[in-house]
Amino acid sequence: MADPRFFTVQGPFSLKDLAAFISAELILADGHDDARQIDDVASLAQAGATQISFLDNVKYKADFTASSAGACIVAPEMAELAPKGMSLLVTKNPYKAYALIAQKFYPVDPSMDNQGFVDPSAVIGAGAVLGQGCVIKAGAVIGAGAKLADYVTVEPNAVINDNVEVGARSVIGANASLTHCLIGAHVRIYPGARIGQDGFGFAIDPAGHVKVPQLGRVIIEDSVEIGANTTIDRGAGPDTVIGQGTWIDNLVQIGHNVKIGRGCIIIAQTGVAGSTVLEDYAVLAAQVGVAGHLKIGMGARIAAQSGIMRDVEAGAEMMGSPALPIKQYMRQVATMKKFSRGKA
Amino acid sequence: MADPRFFTVQGPFSLKDLAAFISAELILADGHDDARQIDDVASLAQAGATQISFLDNVKYKADFTASSAGACIVAPEMAELAPKGMSLLVTKNPYKAYALIAQKFYPVDPSMDNQGFVDPSAVIGAGAVLGQGCVIKAGAVIGAGAKLADYVTVEPNAVINDNVEVGARSVIGANASLTHCLIGAHVRIYPGARIGQDGFGFAIDPAGHVKVPQLGRVIIEDSVEIGANTTIDRGAGPDTVIGQGTWIDNLVQIGHNVKIGRGCIIIAQTGVAGSTVLEDYAVLAAQVGVAGHLKIGMGARIAAQSGIMRDVEAGAEMMGSPALPIKQYMRQVATMKKFSRGKA
Amino acid sequence: MADPRFFTVQGPFSLKDLAAFISAELILADGHDDARQIDDVASLAQAGATQISFLDNVKYKADFTASSAGACIVAPEMAELAPKGMSLLVTKNPYKAYALIAQKFYPVDPSMDNQGFVDPSAVIGAGAVLGQGCVIKAGAVIGAGAKLADYVTVEPNAVINDNVEVGARSVIGANASLTHCLIGAHVRIYPGARIGQDGFGFAIDPAGHVKVPQLGRVIIEDSVEIGANTTIDRGAGPDTVIGQGTWIDNLVQIGHNVKIGRGCIIIAQTGVAGSTVLEDYAVLAAQVGVAGHLKIGMGARIAAQSGIMRDVEAGAEMMGSPALPIKQYMRQVATMKKFSRGKA
Repeated sequence: MADPRFFTVQGPFSLKDLAAFISAELILADGHDDARQIDDVASLAQAGATQISFLDNVKYKADFTASSAGACIVAPEMAELAPKGMSLLVTKNPYKAYALIAQKFYPVDPSMDNQGFVDPSAVIGAGAVLGQGCVIKAGAVIGAGAKLADYVTVEPNAVINDNVEVGARSVIGANASLTHCLIGAHVRIYPGARIGQDGFGFAIDPAGHVKVPQLGRVIIEDSVEIGANTTIDRGAGPDTVIGQGTWIDNLVQIGHNVKIGRGCIIIAQTGVAGSTVLEDYAVLAAQVGVAGHLKIGMGARIAAQSGIMRDVEAGAEMMGSPALPIKQYMRQVATMKKFSRGKA
Repeated sequence: MADPRFFTVQGPFSLKDLAAFISAELILADGHDDARQIDDVASLAQAGATQISFLDNVKYKADFTASSAGACIVAPEMAELAPKGMSLLVTKNPYKAYALIAQKFYPVDPSMDNQGFVDPSAVIGAGAVLGQGCVIKAGAVIGAGAKLADYVTVEPNAVINDNVEVGARSVIGANASLTHCLIGAHVRIYPGARIGQDGFGFAIDPAGHVKVPQLGRVIIEDSVEIGANTTIDRGAGPDTVIGQGTWIDNLVQIGHNVKIGRGCIIIAQTGVAGSTVLEDYAVLAAQVGVAGHLKIGMGARIAAQSGIMRDVEAGAEMMGSPALPIKQYMRQVATMKKFSRGKA
Repeated sequence: MADPRFFTVQGPFSLKDLAAFISAELILADGHDDARQIDDVASLAQAGATQISFLDNVKYKADFTASSAGACIVAPEMAELAPKGMSLLVTKNPYKAYALIAQKFYPVDPSMDNQGFVDPSAVIGAGAVLGQGCVIKAGAVIGAGAKLADYVTVEPNAVINDNVEVGARSVIGANASLTHCLIGAHVRIYPGARIGQDGFGFAIDPAGHVKVPQLGRVIIEDSVEIGANTTIDRGAGPDTVIGQGTWIDNLVQIGHNVKIGRGCIIIAQTGVAGSTVLEDYAVLAAQVGVAGHLKIGMGARIAAQSGIMRDVEAGAEMMGSPALPIKQYMRQVATMKKFSRGKA
């Protein structure tokens, strides 16, 4: 069970309601009926008779057959292996279904039931507009003219600068700072993220580099996640754009003018240099570096620690620094390994 | 045009004044006179008859010849290609000139016209001294005995610890923290930067590593930029020093006792380990790692993702991990690529 | 001498007391007696007659023989080389002994003499419990139900969320944020560190990735250091654990469910992906990447910039991306270098 000091569980919910919620087929164990109450999620190993778990990976088959969970979300092909006493919620994508059920027990979005609250220590600038149900926590600073839509949460000591806009039900994490940006709905900015500061633009000069004013913004579309201590610079003239549903992990650097499409995934400590374009559903694993002014095609996948110095075609899988198509890279690694054994 | 919610444009300025400001030769288009008013900067593609743009890269020649900009900053050799209706400001370094003109329309330094302001929610420690025109925003904390020179701006929720000194017209970004440091004039510390905390110094001991007190400071000279969420540790005994006019990007790590010369450029996510020296004008591209106790010579240039384990000579260009001179590295990459095709 | 604006020196202490404190043999110089007062630490080159230095590395032998230090911590084999006028504190581990002596002059732990203090601008949530001698600085936010043991220091604008617990004499740095975590005693969290936010967990879905609620915590055991702007995500179900006495440098990323043993060392900008286990005393140098679900054996040492994609045996030394045993890697590098000279 999640530590009740940090998590408040909702429910219980009936098997019938849970199955309907994820559009799963419900197969009841002997002695269960569909009104049976489920009070929490848990791992296969830890779940008890009133809890629901999931099986997503064949590797955990033994945990599944030995589990005491009262209910389990499974794919159709695993259903017949279920132990006694376990009702099944059968669906083709058990992990996604588990995510949704877990959110039902532990909601991740700001509640639409609250009346809103502004901590007395928060500072709200002149002309700032807060929608209904906004929660502004201690020490948060909302600049003049900022517009927060309904049910926005601003965690302690976060800073939202003048005229920034934040869409409904977004969460701005503790000590994060936003400036020169427009944030969509359902966006989560994690603690310490830096959005909208000047990009790294200057004319090189031995007598003193000359700053080029950075006159664009950062546009973050709906349902984006921006990880802790990640930095996203505003555009130099055009905007920096993070497309709908893209997830960015911690300590990532996004340079000025970068355009990231929809549903991309960018893992920790990766950097994308200025003016590069990521098309929809591109995936950058951890510690990747992408040079500036490139195009990473739709659905391309870049392995961890790769260095991308040229455009990448849609759907390509790349690895290495400088990166090669992954099969080619693997052959190269195998050949080099021979040298390391003195066998080449 | 830059979004007026986030940017306030100055001007307009006459062609004559703009040309004089950057010491350019003014070549007037037919029907223009030198009192003609220019009201904004814009890209070649977007500029209109009352706006000024620039051409720095031959790649954009087509944009230049098709541009409707009323004025353009160009190099002498491009002047004859100008379209009708475009006055020219001719100079040898158009990008630097554009940077200066853009700063005229969109000033980047704190104004010297303001009267100063301390937000009532800011906390100013005993004996702290604020020069004239300082702007201390909401939730900022200025420690006891800190000294801020004239026209310093401290953004919301930034922390300046006891006895820290900040030079004139410097800007300390939102949620940044400074301790044990002396900051020059005209310095910009971006949001979330961490300056002056203890370096990573300890005696290794299986019974418990023993911390070595870090007794130095961070000295940041004039006109330095420190990127968002960058970390610069104070010296262990000697100081950590960032030389005049050096620009450091986001998420960079500078270890204790590092000495960085004048005019260096350090791009995002690079790390420089303890006691290493960078001579003037060295350039470290993104995600470079430099080991400790090394010397990187004057003007050396290190390619992205390189790993530097030995001293680098002045002017050298290095690439790879471990790094080699760039030509040598390129030959190595080419040979390895053959293996990846099964052709070696 | 350390800058008195930033450091307050304790003492003076007698040679006798200092030697006893580190269990060293005291060899008095001619004319010294063991009541002789020492008033500061300093480097061999800068120490004067009333100061103590140390020699840990034969490389600095010349500095040692030329030093004017009144006292020096040395290993037995160096004692006979001491210059005139220098008393010796002889011990087998001079660097550790120096660390302890330097802490005597410049204490690194919160004082147990103070009466505690809560800055009026700090915000203390309902039911939060502060032990005796806690110092809560300006703008810090302590959530409802949080528990701080005795002599905890919370630096300005740090955020400790609801129900978080912090052990005795720990220090939470400026602008750091803690949530969903239990922190041991004698822990130092540096400025801007992010502890306990949601890990990067979601079910991939082209129609919109679905967040998996992250239901674990971060457990930080006693005597751990967490560097500036480092991020440690909470567990997805199990906890993320940082073992006793482990030191983590700046800008490090620790993913959800990671278990780190005792006495590990993790240097700047390294990333450890989800569910990986580091056994005791493992060392990850700077900019290392470790993939998820791996085991790094006890005392293993990973060189800077390495990429770890498989389990590593106890005591192994690895280098490269993908990593190899270090000798094997060095042979590979040597062979590749030949290609770069066109000699292969």
